[in-house]
Amino acid sequence: MLKNDLLLKALRQEEVSRPPVWMMRQAGRYLPEYIALRKQYDFFTRVQTPELACAITLQPVDIVGVDAAIIFSDILVIPQAMGLEVLMEESKGPVLPNTIKSASDVDKLTVSVNDQLQYAFDAISLTKKELNDRVPLIGFAGAPFTLLCYMVEGKGSKAFEKARAFCFTQPALASKLLQKITNATIQYLKGQAKAGADVVQVFDSWSGLLGPDDFNLFAAPYLLQIAEALAPHVPVILFPKGSNYALRELSNHACVSGISLDWTIRPADARKETQNRVTLQGNFDPSKLLMSPNEIAREVHSMIDAFGTQGYIANLGHGISPNVPVENANAFVQAVKEYTHVAVH
Amino acid sequence: MLKNDLLLKALRQEEVSRPPVWMMRQAGRYLPEYIALRKQYDFFTRVQTPELACAITLQPVDIVGVDAAIIFSDILVIPQAMGLEVLMEESKGPVLPNTIKSASDVDKLTVSVNDQLQYAFDAISLTKKELNDRVPLIGFAGAPFTLLCYMVEGKGSKAFEKARAFCFTQPALASKLLQKITNATIQYLKGQAKAGADVVQVFDSWSGLLGPDDFNLFAAPYLLQIAEALAPHVPVILFPKGSNYALRELSNHACVSGISLDWTIRPADARKETQNRVTLQGNFDPSKLLMSPNEIAREVHSMIDAFGTQGYIANLGHGISPNVPVENANAFVQAVKEYTHVAVH
Repeated sequence: MLKNDLLLKALRQEEVSRPPVWMMRQAGRYLPEYIALRKQYDFFTRVQTPELACAITLQPVDIVGVDAAIIFSDILVIPQAMGLEVLMEESKGPVLPNTIKSASDVDKLTVSVNDQLQYAFDAISLTKKELNDRVPLIGFAGAPFTLLCYMVEGKGSKAFEKARAFCFTQPALASKLLQKITNATIQYLKGQAKAGADVVQVFDSWSGLLGPDDFNLFAAPYLLQIAEALAPHVPVILFPKGSNYALRELSNHACVSGISLDWTIRPADARKETQNRVTLQGNFDPSKLLMSPNEIAREVHSMIDAFGTQGYIANLGHGISPNVPVENANAFVQAVKEYTHVAVH
Repeated sequence: MLKNDLLLKALRQEEVSRPPVWMMRQAGRYLPEYIALRKQYDFFTRVQTPELACAITLQPVDIVGVDAAIIFSDILVIPQAMGLEVLMEESKGPVLPNTIKSASDVDKLTVSVNDQLQYAFDAISLTKKELNDRVPLIGFAGAPFTLLCYMVEGKGSKAFEKARAFCFTQPALASKLLQKITNATIQYLKGQAKAGADVVQVFDSWSGLLGPDDFNLFAAPYLLQIAEALAPHVPVILFPKGSNYALRELSNHACVSGISLDWTIRPADARKETQNRVTLQGNFDPSKLLMSPNEIAREVHSMIDAFGTQGYIANLGHGISPNVPVENANAFVQAVKEYTHVAVH
């Protein structure tokens, strides 16, 4: 039994005394303890060594006091396990030297990924043990469209024009690729649930580059397949970043427990689109974590005022930035925890 | 009298036989004729030499047959005229070595910019003469928030986190900077109208990085000041890219004739938000210009079906990419021009 099950209760839309809080990329570069490990071990060593991934995952639980841990990993472990080389230079972002161009590139990709991802399951098992039921553990994967973006473009990009053009000019091949990624991801997330993940989140970091009709072709069907396959095992949170146009439709599916929002939508509008069909998560602008702790608290309280305390998970609208002082991250978390004490509703 | 005044009619919401069409960045790198000039003259030589800017502006009118010219220039001419150095390397994007950090940096900026921007007015006068009333000429400027992004960040960025943090942590200084940029921009756009621009467009390329409340603080007031100052002289089109949440409010102001949209909004939703208070422009996904000419025509026709032919300007949702074949750009323009012949409404 979890000692702090606020996150799970919020995802089941059960009554909570206050909203749970965690931060995307909470195990990351704003923490001196993380930077210390980064100096010793390269990126994939940290990801693939269960003891290191576990230690990094626990850092924000111990230091910042979040209500959930999220396993330290990367969305690109799936393309890697499917057979694509992924280079990760800390300052430059990921590079995939052999991009997907043709049908034979797609055919070569493996779908049976779990043997190669055993390290992730081991990291989850170990972390569950070390967490000792203090807070739930979130597993995650990248969404198929977002992974396609990297697999076709070969690197990060503002607009992923090559990847989008791939979808538009070779839609049948894009579907085939998206389906293979989906199958691999379902297997991977089921493995994470089996290893002990209490919740899974699917990050569609680039879905907002698609217009509404193209989202329905290249993103939504795969997100929903994943949600349907995982929902019998664990609650599923989707994060279709920038795709506010899709909230109504995605929230109509019972397999989706939560939707994570970026900061470009008013909480009231998000509630209107999704009614009370899903729990909403988000959506603090991470740049506001550079405000003073007092100002952060004020902004957090007005965010909770707007979302309401029920069916809600306080979070950022995107990952925390490396230049945020730890005390400001603390201020964010504390502002949520103290909400019931300061506000009258 | 203009021989082709479709754009002006559409902006006045007068009846048109078909929607006008032009493309953002239509005078650009997809045209071999542009690349030829680029090989001979560096960026600011092209911008600051009226004969070159005029020649580049006319290229897409002659080659692709668009219904409007837009003066060849850059949004960063305003920061430059205000006193900041702007370096432009063709492949790397702009760099502003002396970023705005403090009150004294803001104080140093000049607001009286028009003497330094005489080349732009000369380019407009010359282009009007050379156009010989074939199509209208659009003038433009960057929106204050977008210019602040570059002036504070010092270069292009995915998320302009430094610029947003500047706004959030020093809101009074940000307001002061935005007001100075606004004053300079009004002067500049009035000069463009006086020199012969028939329409002006204000590009808020990065406003979508702001949440709705912050858009109301850091973007909307300045966009509307500009629109109010220019509306007595020329129709004003605003392009608050990514800020779909702002459509209803912006369209409530009579000084705004047109709003340009990116492709992340359904035409029906944009009409619902704006009713018939403004003309809408957009919103073809530029990555779709890599589809075949036939497919482009099909997509363009369904876009016009969705927007309707009246109070509408066919355009892209963002600038045309350098890798688009000229014949595909032609297919886009032709598909709009032939719309009345192929569709029954």
